[in-house]
Amino acid sequence: MKLLRHGNIGEEKPGLELADGSRVDVSGFGMDWDSAFFSDPENLTRLEQWISEKSGALPVLDSSVRLGPCVATPGKLICIGLNYSDHAEEAGMDIPAEPIVFFKATSAICGPFDPVMIPKNSEKTDWEVELAFVIGKRANYVSEEDALDHVAGYLLHNDYSERAFQLERGGQWVKGKSCDTFAPLGPYVATPDELGDINDLDMWLTVNGETKQNGSSSKMIFDIPKLVSHLSEFMSLMPGDVISTGTPPGVGMGFQPPQYLQPGDVVELGIAGLGQSRQEVIADER
Amino acid sequence: MKLLRHGNIGEEKPGLELADGSRVDVSGFGMDWDSAFFSDPENLTRLEQWISEKSGALPVLDSSVRLGPCVATPGKLICIGLNYSDHAEEAGMDIPAEPIVFFKATSAICGPFDPVMIPKNSEKTDWEVELAFVIGKRANYVSEEDALDHVAGYLLHNDYSERAFQLERGGQWVKGKSCDTFAPLGPYVATPDELGDINDLDMWLTVNGETKQNGSSSKMIFDIPKLVSHLSEFMSLMPGDVISTGTPPGVGMGFQPPQYLQPGDVVELGIAGLGQSRQEVIADER
Repeated sequence: MKLLRHGNIGEEKPGLELADGSRVDVSGFGMDWDSAFFSDPENLTRLEQWISEKSGALPVLDSSVRLGPCVATPGKLICIGLNYSDHAEEAGMDIPAEPIVFFKATSAICGPFDPVMIPKNSEKTDWEVELAFVIGKRANYVSEEDALDHVAGYLLHNDYSERAFQLERGGQWVKGKSCDTFAPLGPYVATPDELGDINDLDMWLTVNGETKQNGSSSKMIFDIPKLVSHLSEFMSLMPGDVISTGTPPGVGMGFQPPQYLQPGDVVELGIAGLGQSRQEVIADER
Repeated sequence: MKLLRHGNIGEEKPGLELADGSRVDVSGFGMDWDSAFFSDPENLTRLEQWISEKSGALPVLDSSVRLGPCVATPGKLICIGLNYSDHAEEAGMDIPAEPIVFFKATSAICGPFDPVMIPKNSEKTDWEVELAFVIGKRANYVSEEDALDHVAGYLLHNDYSERAFQLERGGQWVKGKSCDTFAPLGPYVATPDELGDINDLDMWLTVNGETKQNGSSSKMIFDIPKLVSHLSEFMSLMPGDVISTGTPPGVGMGFQPPQYLQPGDVVELGIAGLGQSRQEVIADER
C-alpha cells in the first residue's frame, strides 16, 4: 500500500497511490493516516478489505490535486545526523560512535510539492534527501531483532537545513532544522511489503536539474533496526512518529565553495520505491 | 484562571483551580486545554461566562484525583538552555550570546504528581525547576514589543535531564531530555492576569526536603518577550506549544561531587503563583 494525503493545507484527506500510478481518495474508509491508524496493523488489513469491496469505485484524484504530508500530525519528527560516512566527511565532522539524534519541529512539516520558504535573514538554506520511516507499534527498549516490528512504513523526506542557523546561532541544531516548510514528507508512506531491501535503496536529489546527491541507503552507518533500538532506550517511539535516517553526500554545505538555495531554484528528489517530490524555492514574505 | 486537567493517564478532562484552592471539573464546557482552546482568547471569555452561569454547581474534585499535564497534546515542547547566568557557571559553560534552544519529546510529558522514572542504564538523572509558558496566538517574526500578545499563560515545569545521555552520548542534548516522565507540567496553566511581574517570580526545588534550587525569574538572561521574538524567527510557534525558559542554579550536576536522583527520592518544586508539584523517583521497570 502507498498511503498519501491530498487536499488543501490543513484539510487533507487520506488517499492511496495504486499499482498503476493512479491516485484515489479513500476518505470513505473513515481513518486518516495518523497515530491511531498506524498503531494497529489490523487497520491495514481492514483497509485492504474495504478497497477490495470498493474495487473500481473509488474517486480518482486529478493530477492537479495537492498532496499533503503523507503522515498526519506526527507527535515527533526525529532525525539522525551524520549517518552516512561520506556525508560526515564532507561536513568536516567525525564519524559518530553512536547515532546523533536531533528533532525538527513538527510545524516544519509540509506537502511533498509545496514550495520551500527561505527564512528571513537566511543565506545558507540547504537540502538533504533522506529515507524516513513511520512508527507503528509503540517502542520502548526494543532489541534490534524486534525493531522492524515497530515500523509501519517508509517515506521520502527532504531535511532542509539552514546551516548558519544550525551551526552558528548557539549550541544546538534546532534553529536550523525547524523552519516552516523545512520537512516535506512524501509523496506517500509505502508499507514494507512494497519495498525490496531497505538497506539498498537508491536515492538522489537535483537542483535545477543538476544532480547533487546520488547515494544509497546501503551506506548508512547505523541501519534502521539499530536506530529504532537505540532511540527506544531514550524515549518512547509512538505510533505515527516519523524518523529520518540521515543524508548521503552532496549537500550544499559540502561543495567548495558551498552552494545554497536561492528563490527560483527547483529541488527534485526521490528514493527507489518511495516516489519523488519537488519543491520550488521561494522567499518567506510573511 | 488556573486551568488544570484531571483523570487517568490518557483520559484527562479539563478542570479549574478556584481562588479558594478548590478544584472543579469543567468538562461540561466542551473544550480541553489544547491548541484549539489556546488559539482564541475569546475561549477564556466564554469559559468565564459559562462558569458564572454555573456558579456553585460545578463538580468538586476530590484531593485524591490525579492531575494530568495541564496542557493537552502540545505540538512542541521547546526549552532554553543556560538561561540563568549562575546556572551556566555551575554547568561549566559560557554565558550564551543568544538563546540556546533544544526540544524535549512531547512523549516525555506527564502529570505534576506522577512518579519520575529513572531510565534503564541511567546514573545521572537530574532536576531543573523551570518557568514555562504556553503559546496562544501563532507567532512568526514577532517583535519583542508584541511578544506577550502570543502568550496564553504560564506553568511550572520540571525539566528532568539525564546528564550522561545529554552530554556523553553523541552530540545533541535530545537523548538526555526526552525520556518518558521527564516533563511534568503543572499543576495548572495560570492566565497572565493571575500573576504579578513575570520577571520577578520566586522558584524553588527540594530533594527529600532539602533545598537545592532557590532562584528567581529576575535572573533570566533572555526574558520571555526576547525568547518569543527570537524563537519566532526560526519556526512557527503554534497555539498550545509549551516553551520552558531555563533553570536557576542548584541542579545536581552543579554540586561537588555531583548529586543525582535515586529510586525512593522525592522531588518537590514550585513557582510563586504557579503552584507546586511533587515527583517520587522510581526505576523504569518496563
